Amino acid sequence: MGAKENRTTGPWFEAFAPPTLSNIGPGYDCFGIAVDGPGDRVRARKSATPGAQLRSIEGDGGKLPREPERNTATVAVSRLIERYAPGAGLELELHKGLPLGSGLGSSGASACAALVAANAALGLDLGAHQLVELAREGERVACGAAHPDNVTPGIVGGIVMIPNLEPLRFVSLPVPKDLWFALYTPGCEVSTKAAREALPARVRLTDTVRHASRLGLLVHALHVGDLQLLGEAIVDEIVEPVRATLIPGYPDAKAAAVEAGAIACSISGAGPTTFAIAGSEERAIVLLEILEEAFTHAGVPGKGRVSQVSEGARLVSRRLH
Amino acid sequence: MGAKENRTTGPWFEAFAPPTLSNIGPGYDCFGIAVDGPGDRVRARKSATPGAQLRSIEGDGGKLPREPERNTATVAVSRLIERYAPGAGLELELHKGLPLGSGLGSSGASACAALVAANAALGLDLGAHQLVELAREGERVACGAAHPDNVTPGIVGGIVMIPNLEPLRFVSLPVPKDLWFALYTPGCEVSTKAAREALPARVRLTDTVRHASRLGLLVHALHVGDLQLLGEAIVDEIVEPVRATLIPGYPDAKAAAVEAGAIACSISGAGPTTFAIAGSEERAIVLLEILEEAFTHAGVPGKGRVSQVSEGARLVSRRLH
Repeated sequence: MGAKENRTTGPWFEAFAPPTLSNIGPGYDCFGIAVDGPGDRVRARKSATPGAQLRSIEGDGGKLPREPERNTATVAVSRLIERYAPGAGLELELHKGLPLGSGLGSSGASACAALVAANAALGLDLGAHQLVELAREGERVACGAAHPDNVTPGIVGGIVMIPNLEPLRFVSLPVPKDLWFALYTPGCEVSTKAAREALPARVRLTDTVRHASRLGLLVHALHVGDLQLLGEAIVDEIVEPVRATLIPGYPDAKAAAVEAGAIACSISGAGPTTFAIAGSEERAIVLLEILEEAFTHAGVPGKGRVSQVSEGARLVSRRLH
Repeated sequence: MGAKENRTTGPWFEAFAPPTLSNIGPGYDCFGIAVDGPGDRVRARKSATPGAQLRSIEGDGGKLPREPERNTATVAVSRLIERYAPGAGLELELHKGLPLGSGLGSSGASACAALVAANAALGLDLGAHQLVELAREGERVACGAAHPDNVTPGIVGGIVMIPNLEPLRFVSLPVPKDLWFALYTPGCEVSTKAAREALPARVRLTDTVRHASRLGLLVHALHVGDLQLLGEAIVDEIVEPVRATLIPGYPDAKAAAVEAGAIACSISGAGPTTFAIAGSEERAIVLLEILEEAFTHAGVPGKGRVSQVSEGARLVSRRLH
């Protein structure tokens, strides 16, 4: 412990958390992928005031709650302090790079970045499992349930499946070479709550079997690195049909992407972000143009990018000011 | 074509089909495993009479239908002749090694053995996909639906998942080293029809998600060869609880096997065959004794064996008599 540690505040630690896709066809509520792209950044430093203080939020258009008990970043960090550093204090600054309500795991990304920054600022050495559990507490506040399907890839990176919630169990799956995504976020909002409420409470047993076996095929396709099998597996007859109706232009956009050779096309999370899968960057660029054209035609132009699977949340700098 | 081909009958070809486990925890209706053990044998030879003739059945205690249109072996071979050798004639002799209604894929095994024998007797070169499709026609007669979960491993061998029925799609999965089964068939019968009718028509969405993600975990565990993960994955909260009530002594037998360190324990097919998984032959022997004791105590003593994953149906001899 150096003399610096005795100052009222410590140095700033900054972490970045990537966007995450969730659901992925038959992987509703148990599958997520971290992808390249603008994400959330959180800076954290020790302070003399116990607990998690939110100094500022930028990039959210003033929409996110500032109260520590309602913001996913501060909720997650408060739990971290309670469990692993009782009495400690942290100041946080949140810079949103992810659009809210987009289906790219925005609420989870803030918690993931905040936890990685806090872990470093407090000199803790918490592992992925602990960080995911803490990030879920943020999701509990944002979504009403401690969904792990964004925060697990948000922390761990790559492609993850979450087969059990209590106790939490997740496994990382192999990332096939040449797996490219065209991601397009149409200019409309979908409430996660509304998108959940639209889902059927019950599913026919025959549909359950087909859904399950497609998830099995998805896992198999990732292990053997077969993108065509992956495309066969990424079919969702339970959740997607309901959510498709909440996104203007989605059916036409998907049809056009599939027509143009997309390996698969579906909705990330509750939407409206739509992903199309390709086996090369060139093909992903074409698919992105097709999605853009379709959603623009439907009156909901938005933003898109071509992306690959990425690492999870990571420390990006330790700044002294 | 030699002179022998002009005789009224050709030489006998004999094929063997192994027992098969199906369902396997979350793999209801989409997962099957071929295992070592007594199976069904079918002999086939060309005859001058068009179509499939059933000369004899041994080992079924007189219980199987002798009418060609109701016996799974002759139904499957009739379809084979219709599709691939119109006008040809075959005589069949069936020797049942598998007990009926046991959950070991008895009806499917007869069809698989018959098809492999017929394929050879007619000098055809049908592949696995074609043979599985034909064997499903036998299942349609026996079970009322063309279930592929016994006949696919019955033909292909190993561990298979069947993610799609129409068109049929199956994939073979890696077989972990040191995967041992204790198989016990208690002395009671379970009607497949009754066992299907007892199932719920609909499943809660949350249960569907958990079921699906366990199947994903099962596939992952096989790919990475992790028997402990396999045990976590082989949990079925949808089908097994219903079927468990149809098998006297099952809950106690399972509890005892799990207590004794079984990696997993569940029902094969509609039951009553119960399987327990172990990581060594020694442990599987212990589990077999435990299952035997529990079912005997419940008043339904039966037969069991220790087994490993096996090949599928195969030609065992070409006999001239």
